[in-house]
Formats: sequence, C-alpha cells, structure tokens
Amino acid sequence: MENLEIILARRPDGRLSPDHFEARAAAVPEPGPGEVLLRTLYLSIDPANRAWMSPVPTYVAPVKPGDVMAGFALGQVVRSNDPSFRAGDIVEGATGWRRFAVTAARNLRKRRMFDPPTALLSVLGITGKTAWFGMAEIGRPRNGETVLVSAAAGAVGSIAGQIAKGMGAKVIGIAGGAAKCRHVVQDLGFDAAIDYKAESVGEGLKRLGIKSVDVYFDNVGGEMLEAVLFRMANFGRIVCCGNVSQYDTATPAPGPRGVPGLLVVKRLRMEGFIVLDYESRYDEAEADLARMIAEGRLTYREDIGEGLASAPAMLVRVLAGGNTGKAMVRVE
Amino acid sequence: MENLEIILARRPDGRLSPDHFEARAAAVPEPGPGEVLLRTLYLSIDPANRAWMSPVPTYVAPVKPGDVMAGFALGQVVRSNDPSFRAGDIVEGATGWRRFAVTAARNLRKRRMFDPPTALLSVLGITGKTAWFGMAEIGRPRNGETVLVSAAAGAVGSIAGQIAKGMGAKVIGIAGGAAKCRHVVQDLGFDAAIDYKAESVGEGLKRLGIKSVDVYFDNVGGEMLEAVLFRMANFGRIVCCGNVSQYDTATPAPGPRGVPGLLVVKRLRMEGFIVLDYESRYDEAEADLARMIAEGRLTYREDIGEGLASAPAMLVRVLAGGNTGKAMVRVE
Repeated sequence: MENLEIILARRPDGRLSPDHFEARAAAVPEPGPGEVLLRTLYLSIDPANRAWMSPVPTYVAPVKPGDVMAGFALGQVVRSNDPSFRAGDIVEGATGWRRFAVTAARNLRKRRMFDPPTALLSVLGITGKTAWFGMAEIGRPRNGETVLVSAAAGAVGSIAGQIAKGMGAKVIGIAGGAAKCRHVVQDLGFDAAIDYKAESVGEGLKRLGIKSVDVYFDNVGGEMLEAVLFRMANFGRIVCCGNVSQYDTATPAPGPRGVPGLLVVKRLRMEGFIVLDYESRYDEAEADLARMIAEGRLTYREDIGEGLASAPAMLVRVLAGGNTGKAMVRVE
Repeated sequence: MENLEIILARRPDGRLSPDHFEARAAAVPEPGPGEVLLRTLYLSIDPANRAWMSPVPTYVAPVKPGDVMAGFALGQVVRSNDPSFRAGDIVEGATGWRRFAVTAARNLRKRRMFDPPTALLSVLGITGKTAWFGMAEIGRPRNGETVLVSAAAGAVGSIAGQIAKGMGAKVIGIAGGAAKCRHVVQDLGFDAAIDYKAESVGEGLKRLGIKSVDVYFDNVGGEMLEAVLFRMANFGRIVCCGNVSQYDTATPAPGPRGVPGLLVVKRLRMEGFIVLDYESRYDEAEADLARMIAEGRLTYREDIGEGLASAPAMLVRVLAGGNTGKAMVRVE
C-alpha cells in the first residue's frame, strides 16, 4: 500500500491552474487512539475548494502552500481504533486530497451503501443537501412563485431547481451555453433556461415574460446577483449559497448596487448558509432526496474524473464552468 | 381658512436644498363621499422623504416636480363624509406637506390622544414602530448579544437601541460628533458610542474590545455597512432599515464588498422591511412602547420646527444629520 497526496504548492493570486499543485508519495499513516485509517473512494470537487485557498479564513482554515489540499470525500474504513467504526464501513468526511487518510472518528460520518455509491457524494451528499436546505429552509418558495437558479446545470443548482419544482414553483435556470440550457429544461425539467453567454439575465427574463423573481438561489454572486436584485419581487428571498464568480480571480467585482437600498424598498431577505450547520438534520434531507429519486422526480448527473492526480485539472474545469452535474474524482 | 402647500418645484439631482421647494397658497379642498377634510397638526420629517423624490419608484409613487411634497402627518378631522371619523378626531396618514388635506377615510388611522401629542408622531408613531418591528421582528437580538445601531442619535436609531437594551443586548451606537455620542450613552443608556467623525467604526469597535457584532441595525448603508459586514459574527443579522447615506447624492457609493461572500461564510441574514407592512400589528407595538415610556425605560427626544414653511429647511438639516431625535414641523 502506498499513499499519494496532492499538496497546494503555491497560493494562486489569480486564476487557478494545475501547476499550483504537486502530487507526492507518502507513507500510509497509522491511526492513533480514537482514530480511523480510511481509503478514499471518491473525492468531491467543488467551487468552494478554491475559496479555501484564499488567505482569508472562511468556515474552514485556509489551505496554506505545503498543506495537503482540503476536500470532502467518500471513503472506506481500512482500520479503526474507535468502537463506532469498523473495517469496510463507508464513511464521509473532510479528509483531504489523499489516497489514505487518518482522521479522528468524530470527524467522520457513516453512510449506508447506495447504488451507485457516487450518489452518496452527489445528490445524497453535501451537494444535494446544500440544495435541499438552501431551498427548503432559506428560499422557501410557495406554490406558484417564480424561482431563479444560477449555475443551474451545476451540482447544486440542478438539484435546487428540481426541489423548487417539487414545491410547486415555476423554475428558471441560468446556465452558460446552449447545451447546458437544453439539459436544464429537457433533462432536469426546469420551466425555462437563460443562456447568460447569449443574453443578459434581464433580457432572458423579459423574453420569458417574467416580471419579477420571488426566490433567487444564487451560486455565483457578482454582476449576475446585481442584475437579479433589480428584478426581485417585493418580499423576495435571495439564497446566498455560493459566490463562484469571485473565487478564482485577483480582481473581485465591487459589491452589488442595490444593497441595501433595494432590500429596504422591496423588503428583501438575503441570507447565507452552510450545509454543515444542518448536520443534525442530514438524515431527513437524505431520506427526502432518496424518495424523490425513487419516485423518478429527481434527475442527477455526475462528472467523474479518473485518478487522484486528475483532481487539480478537474477543479480548474469546475471553476471555468466546464462540468455538468456533480464533479468528483475516483481515487484508484 | 386658507390653505398652504409645499410643492416640489424641481427634482434634486444631488444634494437637496430648500430652493427645490416652493410654498403656494391654495383653496381649502372639499371632501367628497367617503373622504375626510383634516387640518395638519404636525408633519413628520424623515430621511425617507428624500428617497421619494428619486425618479426610481420606491414603496410609494415618486414625487414629481409640481406635486405637493409627500409626507406623513398627524392631523385633526375638520369635516368627515365617512362614518368612521368625526370632527375633532386625531388621525395619522400620508397626507402630504399641506395645511389642509382631503383624503379617503380608508387611508387614515385614528389615534388616541397622548401627552404630549407629538409622541404620536415620534416614539409612538411610524418612527418608534419602525424601531420596534425592525428590532423585534428582523434583528431579534438574544440576551447577551452585541447590537450595533447606526444613526443612533436619530429618530429611529435612538429607539431601536433602547429596545435592544430591553431585550438584554449590549448596545453600541454610532453617531456623528461628541455631543450626540454623549446623548446616546448618558441620556439613552446605550453601553457605548462610536463617533464616526472621530474614528472609523472598526477602530471604535476595537477600542471598545468588541470582536464581532450579532445584530446591526442599519439606517445609513454605504461605506459604514461595508465596514460592519467585515465585523459581523457568524449567524449575525443586518436589519436594513434605511440607506440615508445614499439618499441625498448624485454619486451613489458602489455596493458593499462582502456581499454575498461574507453572507455565505458567516451565514448572515440581511433583511429589509417597511413598517407599513406591519399595520395590522400597530396596536401591539404602540402598547409596548407606551408601557416602556410609563416605566421610565424609554427616553425620546423631539426636534420640532415651527411652521409648515420651515419643512424644506428641516428636511435638509435631517439629511445632513443636524437633528437629534425625531424631526417634525408644527403646522400653524
């Protein structure tokens, strides 16, 4: 057994490239008391990975040059020094970009096998649950309301929109390119899509005859958020889920005009959230998502890279919007 | 009986001055069926008046050049053609900058006399209720949390801070100048004050040993909002009550950096509101505010101009932060 780790070699100060990472061989670590040795099965590749490289602390400690890259993964227990896990268990946790990881048992969560297992990292993983809690707890669309979702062909947006459909909303997706827009409408069942590379969000809403937006599920921030702010309905809600337009740049956009003026005038609520805060309710979300899949009401797509060493290129592709559905890497 | 009206003579494209208004004599209007003729007693002078002059619609129709200036007032019924009011009744409504007004009865609300009657327009008026609903419904500070209030010597901020104190919070006020800061601490009972003309909000919080803010009651928007965003605690709430830094300028500030990035990372809620939406609960707020006054737990100050013709200069003074407490004009 040989270990492999991907380290952040230098901090990106603008656009990320695979050159910012280095792979290195390492020994397989030994678990201490209360710790678990696991083998990574699939590594989750998410825009948030890029945010963690910023020197500014987020909800996780910043990844520094020389550190193994931080990341969420699905793994299998090899050896456990804690009574709550045993060899063979399928677990999830923020175990980083490495083939073998040792981590405290309290930082792991056991998962029941699912077919396909990748769903445990996509629609039934952090990604699907982010969509679920963001829409059900923060956005709370009512029957007949209009919901707009950015990055609608992405891992979270694709699920968020389908959840809103299930809640009786009219759902419009924003995505880049005709192929993604077709996917959003034809495969995911959104009511309509706006190709932001072909028209502005304002033009798209006008073309679709949509006067105002009740819930905006925002994965991207930036100029698109500003444009939508001016088209929100009174008492609208903006779910601040991500800010991917700003993660991979050295020249962040200014804040959106309309804050706080439009928030007052239109009585808007803008609210950020992180799925980790809902951990005590994960079972509820997973059960609901699994039920939607079983009933044929939830479609998901996965974009799976081969080999741990492909993780850097995969992340670069995700940041450029090159993925459709949930990006992950199968660790050999 | 002669009527007097203040009209908006031309639309300000930058800083407002009294020259933008003209007083004109007019006939006393006749109430039609279902209408009421009232005499204005006190005119409320609020930063929001300035926002209504913008060509961009807010929650009220924009005031156009040639229109009588819009405004909220306390009045007394002279003659009523509606069974729900009779001569002598004290009423409130958005009856405009005029001595005599005719308005539909449904747009008026009867008030019980209070001593002093000006309190019906200040602490028991729109102003006090704005503070009450904003703090109790949107900010919701918990016992021991830190609440920061901008424009803390102003009509709304002064009440909002005292309400938060009553809810068990530690309350810091931001005001311009040493005299206002003294008033905020010594008269209103805030725990501390930051004079933004003498130090930045960040410096002030540091000086006071305050690491983060749980609730920010924001009356001003602009750069101060941006500065506070970076100092919010996780799960903090920003009550978007006003944006007075941006009402009286031709060159609005860009939006605050940190939106939406910090909202996600810190799980912040930013929410705008307008007190008019709570009309069905006015009685509850007024009763609570009156109780606080009776028990000596709520101090308020009024800044009363003499004569309807003084309204333009009073509004200009309010926009420049020249008032302490609730600004209004006694209509002769």
